[in-house]
Amino acid sequence: MRVGFIGLGIMGAPMASNLIKAGFELAVHDCVRERTASLEALGARPADSPAALAPLAEVFITMLPDTPQVEAVLFGEAGLAGALSAGSIVIDMSTISPRATMEFARRLGERQVEMLDAPVSGGEPGARQGRLSIMVGGRREIYERCLPLFQVMGSKVVYTGPNGHGQKTKLVNQVVGSLNLLAAVEGIRLARAAGLDLALTLEAVGGGAAGSWMWSNLGPKMAARDYAPGFMIRLHAKDLRLASELLAELGLDAPGTELCHELFEKAVAEGLGELGNQGLIRLWETD
Amino acid sequence: MRVGFIGLGIMGAPMASNLIKAGFELAVHDCVRERTASLEALGARPADSPAALAPLAEVFITMLPDTPQVEAVLFGEAGLAGALSAGSIVIDMSTISPRATMEFARRLGERQVEMLDAPVSGGEPGARQGRLSIMVGGRREIYERCLPLFQVMGSKVVYTGPNGHGQKTKLVNQVVGSLNLLAAVEGIRLARAAGLDLALTLEAVGGGAAGSWMWSNLGPKMAARDYAPGFMIRLHAKDLRLASELLAELGLDAPGTELCHELFEKAVAEGLGELGNQGLIRLWETD
Repeated sequence: MRVGFIGLGIMGAPMASNLIKAGFELAVHDCVRERTASLEALGARPADSPAALAPLAEVFITMLPDTPQVEAVLFGEAGLAGALSAGSIVIDMSTISPRATMEFARRLGERQVEMLDAPVSGGEPGARQGRLSIMVGGRREIYERCLPLFQVMGSKVVYTGPNGHGQKTKLVNQVVGSLNLLAAVEGIRLARAAGLDLALTLEAVGGGAAGSWMWSNLGPKMAARDYAPGFMIRLHAKDLRLASELLAELGLDAPGTELCHELFEKAVAEGLGELGNQGLIRLWETD
Repeated sequence: MRVGFIGLGIMGAPMASNLIKAGFELAVHDCVRERTASLEALGARPADSPAALAPLAEVFITMLPDTPQVEAVLFGEAGLAGALSAGSIVIDMSTISPRATMEFARRLGERQVEMLDAPVSGGEPGARQGRLSIMVGGRREIYERCLPLFQVMGSKVVYTGPNGHGQKTKLVNQVVGSLNLLAAVEGIRLARAAGLDLALTLEAVGGGAAGSWMWSNLGPKMAARDYAPGFMIRLHAKDLRLASELLAELGLDAPGTELCHELFEKAVAEGLGELGNQGLIRLWETD
């Protein structure tokens, strides 16, 4: 199976790299040309545009920041869609609007191109270790055909239903993860202010009903004031915007998610957008 | 080592029961007399008051709802403190005010009675399975002497520092756990409203960066509309009051914890106090 991979950022690069290491033939494109170099070194073929990638593969993975980038790569100038053969498959692993996802799937379907939405959770460490959680929406038959790819990139792959369900599941994931992150932020702040030993607190609190991935993985980074990005604040803010839009469409009042959305937007406004999401703590701790 | 156990509620009864099964000689007291029956059946000796328990043991464990109950059991009429021999040890495993804890330890110290604060996390399942997380404050030497008891009741025992540090660590735990719980509430509500399969969503979201004890343990209960208490809303509200008091003492602004405190108080005001804390979701889902 030849794979075209578009978007080689913090997440995309290690995901593509794992596919090559697993034996898949890869062609790659990124709007920042230098980003293809490390993949070329592993044997990937570079392409100058999404359209130029089309003849080099049958399955195409996009891993991009937001809805407009996915739309541009698929349907913009030198876009992928117009250059694809019938029977090709597009797997969008970005986190984007569920509504736009359903529209993109419909438009690709008009060209006899299949689409899966397959957003991921697990951040850069998960991408690197091939231990992402992958939430897949689309036709089950297409999902099954692409499963060998997902199994290389992820350790937990769940088929969630028709197109859009992957993205909706991911937004549930972001609602839950954001509040778990805020939980870790307030817990670390309280522990520090109360004069507790942070290493002991991390251990004690991680072992019971308050345990979480965020506490275990980002708590120690907050304690060490390490704000290097596994997942960037500005992308987390974008995911919370998408979640807020979906909540509003559904008429749900979700005060915790609204609070997180406000705090992440504030963090972006204060210039913290390029930090890892554990840097949310810098809204209060400025040293 | 003979152990006196005071407070045989949802948590205390299984903790006391595990101590007996591990071979410790137990004497028990509860203000609700019927609660001692199941422990008596296992061989525990009942006592009519805290004071009457004093001659029957050397180490005394209290597992009570809140600060005033601990104060009454220790220093009230027929209280424990006045009846204890020098060298006895009181281990308070309730979650109460850190400030009051330090005061109680000082008052017991005047009588040459040692005290540990050793609040727990893990709820009724953790208590039953002997898999609590126990956060211990007090003199390290006393902690070490009592470790065999903690190891029966818990799977994660952490010495956190001097008296009060156990309670402060527990309040960090409650800050983190409350927001993780709110995360699960909003995640389940969104998944249900978006028409997602709840079992698949629980699986997919639990596997990545949004995973938590609350999601894995209380998410399925919310999905099944099972509100039986592992840990009651009214006690959770009390813990959040204690956390808010500590945050205020320290001059910390913690909007997530404040939101959780408001929501839990609202749930108590709406008559949901006796439900398990996963019943917080009933503030929005009334069916």
